[in-house]
Amino acid sequence: MSAETAVSTDLGELAAELSEGALVTDRDVIDSYSSDKALFCPVGEALALVRAASVEDVVAVMRFATAHRIPVVTQGARTGLSGAANATDGAILLNVAKLSAIVDIDAVNQTCRVQPGVINQDLKHALAAHKLSYPPDPGSVAISTIGGNVATNAGGMCCVKYGVTKDYVRAMTVVLADGTVTTLGRQTAKGVAGLDLAGLFVGSEGTLGVIVEITLGLTPLLAPPVTGVGIFPDLESAGHTVSEFMASGAAPSMLELMDGGTVGMINAYGDFGLPDGAGALLLVQSDAPGQAGVNELKSFEAIATAQGADEVFFSDDPADSEMLVAARRAVSPAMEKYVSGIGGGELIDDVCVPRSCLGEFFARLDEIAARHSVEVSTAGHAGDGNMHPSVLFDASDPTSVAEAKETFSEIMQLGLDLGGTITGEHGVGYLKKDWLVRELDAGARALQTSIKTAVDPLGILNPGKMLG
Amino acid sequence: MSAETAVSTDLGELAAELSEGALVTDRDVIDSYSSDKALFCPVGEALALVRAASVEDVVAVMRFATAHRIPVVTQGARTGLSGAANATDGAILLNVAKLSAIVDIDAVNQTCRVQPGVINQDLKHALAAHKLSYPPDPGSVAISTIGGNVATNAGGMCCVKYGVTKDYVRAMTVVLADGTVTTLGRQTAKGVAGLDLAGLFVGSEGTLGVIVEITLGLTPLLAPPVTGVGIFPDLESAGHTVSEFMASGAAPSMLELMDGGTVGMINAYGDFGLPDGAGALLLVQSDAPGQAGVNELKSFEAIATAQGADEVFFSDDPADSEMLVAARRAVSPAMEKYVSGIGGGELIDDVCVPRSCLGEFFARLDEIAARHSVEVSTAGHAGDGNMHPSVLFDASDPTSVAEAKETFSEIMQLGLDLGGTITGEHGVGYLKKDWLVRELDAGARALQTSIKTAVDPLGILNPGKMLG
Repeated sequence: MSAETAVSTDLGELAAELSEGALVTDRDVIDSYSSDKALFCPVGEALALVRAASVEDVVAVMRFATAHRIPVVTQGARTGLSGAANATDGAILLNVAKLSAIVDIDAVNQTCRVQPGVINQDLKHALAAHKLSYPPDPGSVAISTIGGNVATNAGGMCCVKYGVTKDYVRAMTVVLADGTVTTLGRQTAKGVAGLDLAGLFVGSEGTLGVIVEITLGLTPLLAPPVTGVGIFPDLESAGHTVSEFMASGAAPSMLELMDGGTVGMINAYGDFGLPDGAGALLLVQSDAPGQAGVNELKSFEAIATAQGADEVFFSDDPADSEMLVAARRAVSPAMEKYVSGIGGGELIDDVCVPRSCLGEFFARLDEIAARHSVEVSTAGHAGDGNMHPSVLFDASDPTSVAEAKETFSEIMQLGLDLGGTITGEHGVGYLKKDWLVRELDAGARALQTSIKTAVDPLGILNPGKMLG
Repeated sequence: MSAETAVSTDLGELAAELSEGALVTDRDVIDSYSSDKALFCPVGEALALVRAASVEDVVAVMRFATAHRIPVVTQGARTGLSGAANATDGAILLNVAKLSAIVDIDAVNQTCRVQPGVINQDLKHALAAHKLSYPPDPGSVAISTIGGNVATNAGGMCCVKYGVTKDYVRAMTVVLADGTVTTLGRQTAKGVAGLDLAGLFVGSEGTLGVIVEITLGLTPLLAPPVTGVGIFPDLESAGHTVSEFMASGAAPSMLELMDGGTVGMINAYGDFGLPDGAGALLLVQSDAPGQAGVNELKSFEAIATAQGADEVFFSDDPADSEMLVAARRAVSPAMEKYVSGIGGGELIDDVCVPRSCLGEFFARLDEIAARHSVEVSTAGHAGDGNMHPSVLFDASDPTSVAEAKETFSEIMQLGLDLGGTITGEHGVGYLKKDWLVRELDAGARALQTSIKTAVDPLGILNPGKMLG
C-alpha cells in the first residue's frame, strides 16, 4: 500500500465519523483556508480541512489525530495577525466557524453561553436586546469570532476601563488532544475550586485544546459615552497628556492615539471630521454617569491644553461619538488604501509598554524609523500603553521587505527595553515565536514547555506556534 | 548513622545556606506554626520551620527539599480556612511572612510591587497616600497577606463590582520546586506573550511554587460610597431583591447579606445601629459618582420595598458607612462570641451559586438545617451569589461534631446541585479536597493532575492539598 493510499484510507475512516460534508479534501478549498491575516508566516500544505458542524465532529477529529499522530490547527474566522491559524504541513485544519450558536443569554445572572464561531459584533447586538454588554472589542470586532478572541485573549479599545477577554471568561468546554471533552472553570461570579484551567486556556492559541463552548460574564449595557478629541503638535505632548491624565485618577472608557501620518491617511480615506495637519491625535471617551463624564473630559481638556494641545473638543452627541470611533476603526482600511499605492506591504506591531514610557517610546520609534527606508505609522491603545506601529513598505522590493522585517524587530526590542511586552493583544503564533524566547526567562520557557507537553503529550495541537 | 542523625545533619546543611536564625527546629515553635484557621484538617508533624528572610532563603529551601525529596508547605499569616497551610508529616514549613516589603508604588502606571508577606490592609493604607486602591478585601483583610491572598485568589466584599485578586495580578516572581527563580506575567496593562502562567499560579495554594514577589495593577482611589440597609422579613424576599436589583443593570460596589440569626449575634456583640428582629438584612453600597450613587440606592429602595422590605435607609455620611461596614466585618467575631456559649464549634462554608438561585438556595438551606441538630447562620456576598453559611455546633460533643460535618457536606452538595461551586473564595486546601473531586469532571481532574505533575514532578509542593 502506498503512502498516498494509506492517507486516503485514513481520511475515509475520519469521514465516516463526521457530519456529512464536514471533511474537505479539495486542494483549492484547503488552500483557501490555510492562512490568517499575518504576513511573513509560512503556510504549510494541510492534509485536509474539517468544517466542524458539531462538537462530535471535533471529538472525531481529535481522536483520529491522536490515533494517527496528525497535527491539528484549529481556526475560526482566520482574522488573526500572528499566523497562529496558518496550516502546517500534513495538518488537519479544524475550522469551528460553523459552531456559531448563542446557546443562552441569562439577564439575571448576566452571563451567556456561546459556541466559538459566534462573531463578536453579532454577540454584542444580541446582548444589547437584553440590556447587557460584552465589552472586549478588538479591531476585528465585526469579523472575528469569540472562540478566536478567547484563544488569543483579544483586547481592543475598551480595555483601558473594561479589561480584556480573559476578564470575561468564566468557563469553557474544550476537546482535549485525545478527544476527551471536559468543562473548565465555573458558571458563577466567583470560584476557586482547583487550578484556574479556564484561565490557562485563554490565550493558548490552539496549543492546548479545542474550545467548543464558552460561558462569559457580562456587564449591564454600557452607557453612551461623552467623546473628546485632542489635537497635538507632536506625539510627545500627546504621550505626556496620556500619562498625566491617567495618573490624575481618570477612568476613561477609551483613550486612543494616532500619529499625524495615520490621521492623514484617515482623511484621505474619508471624512470623519478630523482636522488636517495634526502632529498627533488623542481620542478619549468617558461613560461615567451624568455630569461625571463631562467633568472627566474637562479634566482631559485642561491637561491636554497645558501640554500644548492645538485644539481640544468634546461632545455628548451619540452621532459625533460614532463618527469619531468610526474614524479610529478606519485606521486599518485607510492604511490598506495608503499602502496599496506604495507596494502594498503593512506589518502591524503590537508592543505594550508601561504608560509612563510612552514619551520615550515615541522618541525612540522616530529614531528607528529614521534608520530605515520604510515608513512607520502609529495608532494604538494609549491608555494601556499598547501601541500598534505599522511598518509600511514595498512588498515587491526585497530590500524594502528586509528593512520592514528589521524595523519590526527593532520595535519589539524597544518594547522589551522599556519593560514592556512583544505583544499586548495580537498573540505570538508563528510571527513572534522567536521573540517570545527573548521575552521569557529560562525558567518561564521551561515551565511553558512542560505544561504544553503535559496537556498535549503528542504535540499535535498547533505545533510550531507560540513556543512549539 | 541513625535516621535521626541523618536528618539533623541534613538540616545543618540547610542551616548553612540560610539567613541567621531562619531555621527553627524547636518543636513548640514548629507546632505553633503548624496550622491555619481551618477545622477538621489533619495537622502533621513538620520536620522544621524556616522563616525566610530573603528570596535566597526560599531558593535554599527548595534546592534542599528537591535534593532530599522533602515536602514543603508554604505559608504566610496562616489565616486561611481550608487547611492549605497546615503541616504535613516530615515537611518543611516555609513561612514567608517576613518578606513584607512594599518594593515600589508607581502612581503613573498604577501598579505596585510587593513581597508576599505584606498585610492586605497595610498595602491599602500605603496606596491611599498615593491616591490608589487595591480593591480585594477578604474578611481577613487586616491580618492576611497579599501572598496568601494571591495563593487562594481571595475575594471579599468588593468583588461584586471590582472582581477578585486574580484581576489585579500582573506578574509574579516565583521559586519553583527545584529552586529555579522565574518571573511570570508582565508589568504592562496588557500582554499575551505565551500561556498565562501568572494566572495559573493565582489560586494554586502553594502546590506549584513559592511566590516571592507580586506586581499588582491598581485602580484610582475608590470614591467614598453611599451606603444603604434593607431590613427584610425573611431571606426569600432579600434573595429576590438581590436578583432583581442586579438584573436591573445596577453596579453596586457592595451587596452583602446577613440572615436574622447573624444580625442578632452582631447586636449581642456590639451596637452598630442594626435593628433587632430582622429576618434578613442587605447591606448595599454604591460608589458611582455624584447623584448616580444616590440614584442607585433609590432604585434599591424601590425594589426592596416592592419585595416586602420592612425598612430601607441609606446615607452618604462616611461615618454611617464605616459603622455599617464594621457591622458586616463583625460577623466573624460576633459568631465566635456566640459559639463560645454553645461549645465553640464553627465551620464556615463558602459555596457560590448563580445569583438567580439564591431564593432556592435559602429555602433548601433551611431544610438542611431542619434535618440536623446544629444551627446554621448565613452571611455572604449576595451580589456574587457567594454565601458563607456557618455551621454552629458543640465541639465537645461527638454527635454534634458529626452532625456539623454532615451539614457542611450537604451545603456543598446543594451548591453543586444549583450549578454552583464548593468554594467561591476560601479555597480547597485539605478541607474540601474530597469535594473538589465531585465538582470537577474526569477530564478536568486528569488535566489538573498532569499540570501539577509537570510543574512539580517530585510532588514536594504542599502534597495532600487540593487534588494531591
